[in-house]
Amino acid sequence: MRVWLMVLAILAPCAAPAFADPPAPDVLRAGAAAVRDRALTDPTAYDYVESLSVDVGQRLAGSEATPRATAWAEAELTKLGFANVHREPFQIIAWLRGPESAEITTPHPQKLAIIGLGGSVPTPPQGIEAEIVVVRTYAELLDAPPGAFDGKIAVLTQPMVRTQDGSGYGADNPPRRQGPSEAARRGALAYLVRSLATGESREPHTGALNYASDAPKIPAAALSVIDAELIDHLAARGVPIRVRLKLDSTTKPATVWTVEGEFRGTEHPDQIVQLGGHLDSWDPGTGSIDDGAGMAIAVAAAKLAAAQNPPRRSIRVALFGAEEMDFARPAFAAAHMGENDRIVVIGESDIGADRAWRVALPAGSRAAPEMKTYADVIAPLSVNVSPDPSRGSGDDTADLVRAGVPAFSVSQDASRYFDWHHSAEDTLDKVDRSQLNQAVATWAAFTYIAANSDVDFRALAQMNGPAAPAARSASPSAAPAPPKAGP
Amino acid sequence: MRVWLMVLAILAPCAAPAFADPPAPDVLRAGAAAVRDRALTDPTAYDYVESLSVDVGQRLAGSEATPRATAWAEAELTKLGFANVHREPFQIIAWLRGPESAEITTPHPQKLAIIGLGGSVPTPPQGIEAEIVVVRTYAELLDAPPGAFDGKIAVLTQPMVRTQDGSGYGADNPPRRQGPSEAARRGALAYLVRSLATGESREPHTGALNYASDAPKIPAAALSVIDAELIDHLAARGVPIRVRLKLDSTTKPATVWTVEGEFRGTEHPDQIVQLGGHLDSWDPGTGSIDDGAGMAIAVAAAKLAAAQNPPRRSIRVALFGAEEMDFARPAFAAAHMGENDRIVVIGESDIGADRAWRVALPAGSRAAPEMKTYADVIAPLSVNVSPDPSRGSGDDTADLVRAGVPAFSVSQDASRYFDWHHSAEDTLDKVDRSQLNQAVATWAAFTYIAANSDVDFRALAQMNGPAAPAARSASPSAAPAPPKAGP
Repeated sequence: MRVWLMVLAILAPCAAPAFADPPAPDVLRAGAAAVRDRALTDPTAYDYVESLSVDVGQRLAGSEATPRATAWAEAELTKLGFANVHREPFQIIAWLRGPESAEITTPHPQKLAIIGLGGSVPTPPQGIEAEIVVVRTYAELLDAPPGAFDGKIAVLTQPMVRTQDGSGYGADNPPRRQGPSEAARRGALAYLVRSLATGESREPHTGALNYASDAPKIPAAALSVIDAELIDHLAARGVPIRVRLKLDSTTKPATVWTVEGEFRGTEHPDQIVQLGGHLDSWDPGTGSIDDGAGMAIAVAAAKLAAAQNPPRRSIRVALFGAEEMDFARPAFAAAHMGENDRIVVIGESDIGADRAWRVALPAGSRAAPEMKTYADVIAPLSVNVSPDPSRGSGDDTADLVRAGVPAFSVSQDASRYFDWHHSAEDTLDKVDRSQLNQAVATWAAFTYIAANSDVDFRALAQMNGPAAPAARSASPSAAPAPPKAGP
Repeated sequence: MRVWLMVLAILAPCAAPAFADPPAPDVLRAGAAAVRDRALTDPTAYDYVESLSVDVGQRLAGSEATPRATAWAEAELTKLGFANVHREPFQIIAWLRGPESAEITTPHPQKLAIIGLGGSVPTPPQGIEAEIVVVRTYAELLDAPPGAFDGKIAVLTQPMVRTQDGSGYGADNPPRRQGPSEAARRGALAYLVRSLATGESREPHTGALNYASDAPKIPAAALSVIDAELIDHLAARGVPIRVRLKLDSTTKPATVWTVEGEFRGTEHPDQIVQLGGHLDSWDPGTGSIDDGAGMAIAVAAAKLAAAQNPPRRSIRVALFGAEEMDFARPAFAAAHMGENDRIVVIGESDIGADRAWRVALPAGSRAAPEMKTYADVIAPLSVNVSPDPSRGSGDDTADLVRAGVPAFSVSQDASRYFDWHHSAEDTLDKVDRSQLNQAVATWAAFTYIAANSDVDFRALAQMNGPAAPAARSASPSAAPAPPKAGP
């Protein structure tokens, strides 16, 4: 946060009247700058994630926490002044974790810190004890012939890459999601994967797996980074290593809910600026960064944008009820597909609590006057506009984006995010107020401009096509993977 | 660096015979892995940058240092076993810095830490003293009407964004390169720009400017980040601020040299794997990270790849003689345009000494067996392959890449790089041996595979077109700007 922003911060309350016509460029700019500056000291986002962490806690979709979390979210949106607060039900198969443990039994007993992957089948009650086979890269696993892991527990120890843009997570997703079935195809009895995590912690990191329909379903868990490294050292000794793994879990049909609320537009209530984050979380922590902070950013951005003046278009927030196991995306798309062309732009905030450093705009809009104003308003926050357009914005919105809804996305600094994500260390203490507020300011200024101008992203995309990358002569390199590929 | 790499490191010397036919996939893989592991403990790169920093020091192109640096580079390549070591001369207009100073005179005297931008005209000997006008974003400067800065010194205080991929530098380049002429068009007598730098240091960061032919040439310098923030605070007081600026410099025609050397191919000596870094540097530091480390990486990668076995194709290294003021690019292209189609692939290493986290391959090559092998070999280094192809690789190679030469690029972690780049703090102490060696390993494994296989990047590009980004359903966002747009 730059010092002078504090100098400029406009602290006086202001609730200007609504605009019948789109505001003049300098009025739009001044409004967006005021929203930005107020966001830098506003307590809404932090208070939201603090209450969620303390008063609700973990919110595994379909667990006992779901009704509590849903009621909390409705009360919270109502308290913050949202209108039309309601819940949208959908059905899932909930996966509920039971007791889990693992230890090395040979060459000498050593407990391992593991956590079952979401969706894993249980082991038999007595567990599975077998020799392990260690593979160091996912490519090596895929290269192994049928039968290579017969009667063994396959252990993949490939490290994840620490990245600011979160691309290391996307690149490392197949080892967790498809790894179990790939190991099973080669004869494995069970599968352990080094946590998709940066940092050096003894906490293992969970996440969903996706069984293939044509492979045996084997139990699968994540190892802590530290234990994966220990196994690498042991394996280098060339001695046989045996591991005992016990996983228990149950599944059941459940109803869950996406909670929605809005600030209704004064001129074009049917034109919707759609924000969101996801209400569900994994179970070991309190889901403060995934996605408590993300929800908090979306909720605070909507509130702050609407507090500057009643918006011309509606600003709507969705708190998706089951992101982690991929259920909310199709449910939300099915519920809202009919109003596709009324959604002006959509964005989901789901990359933690740290500062924004880059935004990506809908295709073809970068040179539009409203977006140039936006770029100028966020430059003092140390946020750049990507030369490339947004490819999407959050797992829960992906089906609508594929169906043509323009997407806006914010890259927050993900350097630390995967130290804690999906682990017992996803807790409130990781939320830094000033970084969180800088992210809110980045979202809120966009929301304000989108909701108070007549910017038409679909028309801009048709007119300009996908924005070409700014072609500087010099030393360009590659575009990265998406910041977070999947939950 | 992951611990187990140490466990695996193959320390035994090996100089296998050359391959007449391309080696079998498993032999190619084993060779690349051995090169990688040796790089992790090899002293070549560090020793190179250590000697350059201590025995040569700063190397402003066309200064007294240029002949010394050139002779040093020739001796160094020769010592490391390169063949055909020679210098390729070209002409430049050298810009040489004289004494520089600046201070606030009103409301009270305060020295400012400034450094002239490369190419700036001098002030009159007595300096320029005038009131300043502070603009907080470059967009605001461009929006100012003609005459807005009449008789004043324009000061731009926009911050740069800290990014891992270096894109913050590219985004912030126009304020330094084009800012002086844009300020002059609006009547400014002189121009001060907040250093294109991250961190909070009193050291200002220089870099080239580009005067427009149709604007007055005014003196231009960079302010330290700290002084720019002080000026922001002062400006918020609303009192007039006056600054005195003195800049001196001279220009002269000069001959400079790009130094080249090679390991000649045994089977296809005319097929060239071209690596490089730049020999020149800015003058305030010792150019240890820009581009001492970059050169060191390229030199060590070539040496290590060739040490594993005599390469089938030639591995050539170019140490470009004048990157910072944009002279080497056209000179190198002119000297080598005739052999374009013999350059298999080109890559310049110019983004510091920190660890690699992503590579980008030539378009269409990602699924080629040789590149899948490469991806697998670097996965244990915690380096991903970008889903998007390389757009280029270094300023000095850009003209050849535009002419169709396939490019390979490595994203090293640039999070800290712009804390020191182009400043007096670009010194040897910033070089971390283990991170440097991880970057060497990333380059060396690629070089080994490119030089010992028959991989044909041009044919792959034609067959596959520019590689499409890996389309995961989930929350994709934007592709970033190039890691470093221009010197």
